[in-house]
Order: sequence, then C-alpha cells, then structure tokens
Amino acid sequence: MPYDDNNIFAKILRGEIPCQKVYETDDALAFMDIMPRGEGHVLVIPKAKVRNILDVDADVLSDLIKTVQTVSKAAKQAFGADGLTIQQFNESAGGQVVFHLHFHILPRWEGVPLKPHTGEMEKPEILSANAEKLRRVLDQ
Amino acid sequence: MPYDDNNIFAKILRGEIPCQKVYETDDALAFMDIMPRGEGHVLVIPKAKVRNILDVDADVLSDLIKTVQTVSKAAKQAFGADGLTIQQFNESAGGQVVFHLHFHILPRWEGVPLKPHTGEMEKPEILSANAEKLRRVLDQ
Repeated sequence: MPYDDNNIFAKILRGEIPCQKVYETDDALAFMDIMPRGEGHVLVIPKAKVRNILDVDADVLSDLIKTVQTVSKAAKQAFGADGLTIQQFNESAGGQVVFHLHFHILPRWEGVPLKPHTGEMEKPEILSANAEKLRRVLDQ
Repeated sequence: MPYDDNNIFAKILRGEIPCQKVYETDDALAFMDIMPRGEGHVLVIPKAKVRNILDVDADVLSDLIKTVQTVSKAAKQAFGADGLTIQQFNESAGGQVVFHLHFHILPRWEGVPLKPHTGEMEKPEILSANAEKLRRVLDQ
C-alpha cells in the first residue's frame, strides 16, 4: 500500500497540527497519544514516510526501536509504572488506524487494565502535564 | 530484575525442551507460540540472556527487530493475512509471563478478533503444520 501524505502523523511531522512532543532525534519523534488507553500512553514514530512494518526500511526500523527503548524506560520512571506494554499495529486488520508507522508505549500498573478505545480525547491540560513529566526524565 | 536462567525460553534456547522452530540467526530464534491467540501466532526472541526491553542492550534490540520484521512479512504471506499485530510485554503488570524478551507476531484478518488467553495448548499437529507453512516462505 502506498504512503498517504495526509495522514495525521505526517501532518504532525510537518508542523501543520500540534502535538505534545516529548522527545525528538534526527530520525524519530515521540509524543503523547491524544486518546490514551492509560496514563502516560506515548507514541514513537520515524520521520521517514513509511506506512508500517511491512514497508519500512530495516535500518530505519532498527534505529527507531532504540528510541522506543529510550522512551519506554523514561515512561516507566516518569509515571512510576510497574511494567510496560508495547504494541505496533499493521493495516486495519492488525489494528492500525493512522497509516504512518508507530509504536504504542503503555505504562502499566499491577491490577490496572488498559482502558478500551473510546475515541474520546484526553483533556489538553492532562496531556500537557504528562508530556512535561516525561520530558523531565528524558532531558536528564 | 535479574535474568532467570530457568525460564521456558532459556530452556528452549538450550534445547532442553522442544519448540516448533521457524527461523534462526546467530542472534535470534523464531518459533510458534504453543498457546496461540490466532492462526500463525509466532514469537521472536534474542539468544542473549535478557529479561525484556528494560535491560536489553540497544544493539541487541536493534538487531532483533530486523528479525521481527523478516518473520512478520513472511507470516503475512504464509497465512494470507490482511494485517499483523505486534505485541511486546514487559514485567507482569505489562502482560509478560515468560521472563525472556520476546515479540509476539499475530497475523490478523478483517473481522477476526484475537482469541482470549485461555492457557490451552494448541494441538501439536496444527502447530507443526503452521510452522511448516511459515518455514516454506522463510526458506525461499
């Protein structure tokens, strides 16, 4: 499937729509999920125009997972989590909604299930406070 | 948390218990999940003794994700899937049950939900047939 330049993450990368950015490298960007399935739900995407794991260049993916690890460790610390669930969806049948490769990082706590996908947006002040918590660890 | 040498994947790596192997490199192994949440559910693990994303060396992880991609593409083809869901769990709270780093690769089809974790083992002949399907693509 071809890459769609009008997907929402492409727009975020071009600065056309805002995001709660927490981390950036030459090749990757991390920002808060606006419909979080739990506190501190953060996304990591490559800057390369790739749809998902099926078309991404192996070296881009290989580099990206290092950023996923960096942000995961920071998220565990920033939110005092007991663990982390990492998810990566490919094509609609695989759970993908935005067609730009992304990894979901979900801080987890014992006994706290993930919230269902409600399609409801988190309050901007909560996203912003969580982004700030995470940046504080990542900027150390 | 320290690495536990007696986890089931460590035993698989040492050849102490069998697995339905589909792919192997110097650094990684892929084999069928014995309690699949869908047809063709396959796991990719590093040979390095690492617990999860929190302790794995960044270069080992970086190398491992290339094998995840190779096996993912092959699984989509081998099982005629419409998409793929990739999951990686860290610590009990994050969904981890076996404490050796692993990525779940789940072929997915439109309208077919993942099966719940029943704890029930798949029939050996089905695992073996699925492993063979996947090997046929990977060996090309």
